[in-house]
Amino acid sequence: MAAVALVQGSSRGLGLEFCRYLLLNKSPAAIIATCRNPDAAHELSALSAQHADRLTVLRLDVNREEDIKTAAESVKTAFGKVDLIINSSAMLHPSGKGETSLRDVSAQGVISTLTTNTVGPLVMAKYFAPLLQRGTGAFGLQPPEKDKQHNGIMVNMTARVGSIGDNALGGWYSYRMSKAALNMATRNLSIELGRGRSKIVCVSLHPGTVNTDLSRPYHRNVQKDKLFSTEYSVQCLMNIIDNLNIDKTGKAYAWDSREIPW
Amino acid sequence: MAAVALVQGSSRGLGLEFCRYLLLNKSPAAIIATCRNPDAAHELSALSAQHADRLTVLRLDVNREEDIKTAAESVKTAFGKVDLIINSSAMLHPSGKGETSLRDVSAQGVISTLTTNTVGPLVMAKYFAPLLQRGTGAFGLQPPEKDKQHNGIMVNMTARVGSIGDNALGGWYSYRMSKAALNMATRNLSIELGRGRSKIVCVSLHPGTVNTDLSRPYHRNVQKDKLFSTEYSVQCLMNIIDNLNIDKTGKAYAWDSREIPW
Repeated sequence: MAAVALVQGSSRGLGLEFCRYLLLNKSPAAIIATCRNPDAAHELSALSAQHADRLTVLRLDVNREEDIKTAAESVKTAFGKVDLIINSSAMLHPSGKGETSLRDVSAQGVISTLTTNTVGPLVMAKYFAPLLQRGTGAFGLQPPEKDKQHNGIMVNMTARVGSIGDNALGGWYSYRMSKAALNMATRNLSIELGRGRSKIVCVSLHPGTVNTDLSRPYHRNVQKDKLFSTEYSVQCLMNIIDNLNIDKTGKAYAWDSREIPW
Repeated sequence: MAAVALVQGSSRGLGLEFCRYLLLNKSPAAIIATCRNPDAAHELSALSAQHADRLTVLRLDVNREEDIKTAAESVKTAFGKVDLIINSSAMLHPSGKGETSLRDVSAQGVISTLTTNTVGPLVMAKYFAPLLQRGTGAFGLQPPEKDKQHNGIMVNMTARVGSIGDNALGGWYSYRMSKAALNMATRNLSIELGRGRSKIVCVSLHPGTVNTDLSRPYHRNVQKDKLFSTEYSVQCLMNIIDNLNIDKTGKAYAWDSREIPW
C-alpha cells in the first residue's frame, strides 16, 4: 500500500513546499493537503490539477474542532491510514507582527495565536492519531527490531524562538508562548503515542528563518545567507524526517538536525 | 512607605494563604487580594473584616482584560505602587480533572485553561508592570550594588508538570501546556522588565503538591508526606521570595529553592 502523507496548512509557505517536495520525491505517495480556504489557494489548486491522481485538497480550518473531525473521517474513508502528518499552519500574531513589548500584548491576540499554533495541532493529533496508528511505517527509518518500529510520524512545526532556555531577546510574546506550549504538546504526544504496539513518532521541527509571509516583516533584519528558501528548508526537514525513528521521538530539532533545548 | 503586595486569585488555596502569611509576617505591608467574585469568597471576607486597615479586596476576573486594567487603575490611585505580585489563580481543566489521554482533549478545554493560567498572568504583567516599576524594592534581598537593585517582584505560580524536559508521564495536556507557556511568559517578562533602571524580578514558582481544591481529585495518589499544607508551601515559597534578586530572575524554582528545567 502506497504511503499517505497529510500536510495541514498547505496553501502557501512551508506547507505548500512540503506538498511539492512529496509529489516530486516520494512517488507514489498520496498527499492530502489541507487548508482553510481551498478556493483562494491558487498555487495549491494548480498543483492539484497537475497531480490529480496523487494530491487531494481538503478544507480544514485548524481553529475548528468540527472541521478536523470531519476531515479525519473523510481521510479514513478514502485512505484508511496516514503515515505522516505535518502541522504547518501558524501565525506570528493576528496583526502579522510579533509584540515588541508588553504594551503590544492583548489577551485576544495571545488567545488567537495559541488557538491556531498550539491548540490546532493538538486537536489534529486527537482525531488523526488513530489513522497514524494504522500507518504502515512508510516514512522515517525503521530499525531492524520489530518492537521498535513505528507506524506513523507526526511533525509539529516549531521555532527556535519557542525555546524557553534559548530565549535571550524577549518579545514576540504570543508566538513564543504558542511554540513553547506546542513543544509541550509534542512531548506529551510522544509519551502517549509511543507506548504500545502501534507507535507514532512525534517531534517538533524548526525550519530556520524561511522566506515566507510569516517572517516577511523581518526579512531585512536577517543576513542573506540565513534567510532560507522554502525549498532549502523543506529539503533539510525532509532529511530529518527520513531518518526519524522511535528513539528520536519527543524532541525538538532544527533544520540542521541539531536538538533544540526546551 | 509601607510595602504593597498584590495576590491575584486569593479566594482560596495558595492565594488565600499568601494573604494570611503576608498579614501575619509582613506587617505593616498593605495587601491587595483579588478574586473573581468577592461576595462568594467567605474566608477572604472574614480576613478582610479582621484586617480592614491592611487588606483590600478587589474584584478581578483574570479572564477579562478590562477587569485587569480597571484594577490596575484603582491600585494606582490608592497605592501608587506595588512591590510584589503573585499570580496564583489556576485550573487543571474546566472539568476539574486533567486529561488522562488524547481522547479527553477538547479545543475549548485547552483554550479555557490557557486563558486563565497563561494569558491572565501575562495581561496582569501588562497593566501592573508600571506599578511594579514604581515599587520601592520592599520584597526580596537587595544587593549592595545600586544598579542591581530591583523595584518589584512578579511571581507566576507554575508547576513541575509544566516542565517539558521533566515530563516523563504525559497526560494533563491543558495544564502542562498552560504552565509551559507561562514559563515562557516569565522568561520573556524577565528580559523586558529586567532592563533599564526600574527592574522587576520575574520568576515561576512550583509550590509542590499542595492540599488545595485544584489537586483534590488526586490526593489519594500522593504519599502523605509529599502532600503539603498550604501553610507549609507558602512558607517555603515566601522564603524563596525573600531571597530573590535580579540575578535569580527569569527562572523556575520549586518550593525547595531548586531550579526546575524548562
